[in-house]
Amino acid sequence: MLPTLKDIYEAAERIKPYAHHTPVLVNESLNKQTGAQVFLKCENLQKVGAFKFRGACNAVFSLTDEEAARGVCTHSSGNHAAALALAARMRGIPAYIVMPDNAPQVKKDAVAGYGGRIMFCEPTLEARESTLEGIRLNTGATVIHPYNDERVIAGQGTAALELLEDIPDLDVIIAPVGGGGLLSGTSIAATETKKGIRVIAGEPEMADDAFHSMQAGEIIPSVNPKTIADGLLTSLGTLTFPIIQKNVEQIVTVSEEGIIVSMKFVWERAKIIIEPSSAVAVGVLWEKKIDLSGLKVGVIISGGNVDLKKLPWQD
Amino acid sequence: MLPTLKDIYEAAERIKPYAHHTPVLVNESLNKQTGAQVFLKCENLQKVGAFKFRGACNAVFSLTDEEAARGVCTHSSGNHAAALALAARMRGIPAYIVMPDNAPQVKKDAVAGYGGRIMFCEPTLEARESTLEGIRLNTGATVIHPYNDERVIAGQGTAALELLEDIPDLDVIIAPVGGGGLLSGTSIAATETKKGIRVIAGEPEMADDAFHSMQAGEIIPSVNPKTIADGLLTSLGTLTFPIIQKNVEQIVTVSEEGIIVSMKFVWERAKIIIEPSSAVAVGVLWEKKIDLSGLKVGVIISGGNVDLKKLPWQD
Repeated sequence: MLPTLKDIYEAAERIKPYAHHTPVLVNESLNKQTGAQVFLKCENLQKVGAFKFRGACNAVFSLTDEEAARGVCTHSSGNHAAALALAARMRGIPAYIVMPDNAPQVKKDAVAGYGGRIMFCEPTLEARESTLEGIRLNTGATVIHPYNDERVIAGQGTAALELLEDIPDLDVIIAPVGGGGLLSGTSIAATETKKGIRVIAGEPEMADDAFHSMQAGEIIPSVNPKTIADGLLTSLGTLTFPIIQKNVEQIVTVSEEGIIVSMKFVWERAKIIIEPSSAVAVGVLWEKKIDLSGLKVGVIISGGNVDLKKLPWQD
Repeated sequence: MLPTLKDIYEAAERIKPYAHHTPVLVNESLNKQTGAQVFLKCENLQKVGAFKFRGACNAVFSLTDEEAARGVCTHSSGNHAAALALAARMRGIPAYIVMPDNAPQVKKDAVAGYGGRIMFCEPTLEARESTLEGIRLNTGATVIHPYNDERVIAGQGTAALELLEDIPDLDVIIAPVGGGGLLSGTSIAATETKKGIRVIAGEPEMADDAFHSMQAGEIIPSVNPKTIADGLLTSLGTLTFPIIQKNVEQIVTVSEEGIIVSMKFVWERAKIIIEPSSAVAVGVLWEKKIDLSGLKVGVIISGGNVDLKKLPWQD
């Protein structure tokens, strides 16, 4: 079942006691630079530093008490893992997180810090999936996929709902696209609450599988993508793709340089820490491949988790 | 005349069309680390990236049309210079900024970017003051001191007013202290709107002139201070000192290490960019020289202007 606007409203009620209603920031320098009137929806200021908390929280609190008691599990080394661990801790249930044993220490620490039970495996998709399946069979935990899950999609859509509540007269919303959880949820929330609003995605040029999938009319998987936007490496899912096809006007690709320059500009001028994946959405405005001048544009800043010792402008 | 609560309310009305009502952020990790319930009043997200815009804006828009037409002037190479330049541009009047010729390029660019007319001089206090006096005589511009000015103090106080509007049940407010403009304005706004609220200042151990001034009961000037918190090098003023004496419970000094660790923690966990001077206020909680555990503590994050290529944890 594809999620609906009703699911997103229900998700918003469900996660309200746990998630932040994040602020929307405006910045004159960014407006001047891009020619648009830009509204940054700061999901970097969300719990765990990413929008991912919304979807994970909605999924965890959607479970029956009986399901919940057995816990949740996923394989991820990124923001979804941290988000699921925190949401599970808030409900008082275990979260089993499968991570490759070569994952960066900072990511292991984040998940462990939120109380996630980490299960290490070989760094292959096959090992991740078989380890996850083993956990599911042993514990009865519910698998929460990072994006191809209607509860997760509905949760992610709540960010756009809040944004339109705060700034009702937006012309355009831009979100980054990786697996499509944020983009699909955003697109439902936006197009079904505001007639005529345009939903546009930003995607790294170096990981442009969603762009090609839209052109081809079928999911073209991502093959060995290499981009600084490490949250956007995954391919679209069977749930997210049809929603995106229906609601999203177009996917605009952004160069690696555009990502880095946009990221640095937002740090310097807006004084918030955004990760490269967030800068992909800003980069759509920055590179001006499409004309959005004079429009009111909401940009979903997806997260702010970066290693402060490895910044792309340090050398 | 010392500014009053009424002046701060008037300032709030006066600057409302120009300044941001900045968000207040909470962060669970910071609460856990400090033992307090912390509310970050994000003046780093203010125009020009610092609370200084409030005071400069109030001063500029307090002028009569006749005064305003002749412009404003100051000597500063920091946030006050940028703030005054922007406020003057908003009113459509010139801002003459005296800067030492060895000021960092990034600061010159900031002031010029806001339309300030920079006058260079030798890097001595004497040269700065005589250059400023020359400008005043030639142009008739009004001198706006960075902190020892009642219009500026009243403007700075509006940040605490907003903070208490958003979070009315604070037990304590912490602000950093340099010249005392922010601290004195904050202390009037807080103590006169909320009976029993405690106002505490953070000051670098390496620039602890305000601490000594409070002990001595007279202004002890800062002598060659060396701290990473470069916004807090100045000494208290004849207007700010008596206000602080009357309203501020105590001044707590913070080590250089405490400043850097607090700064990095806020970047990493709260995902906002704060400058070292802001981290001095956070450092009061971090170092726990005084016990604020269990209390609701508002912290004024004074600014976010840093050189991203020179971060104190890069080596």
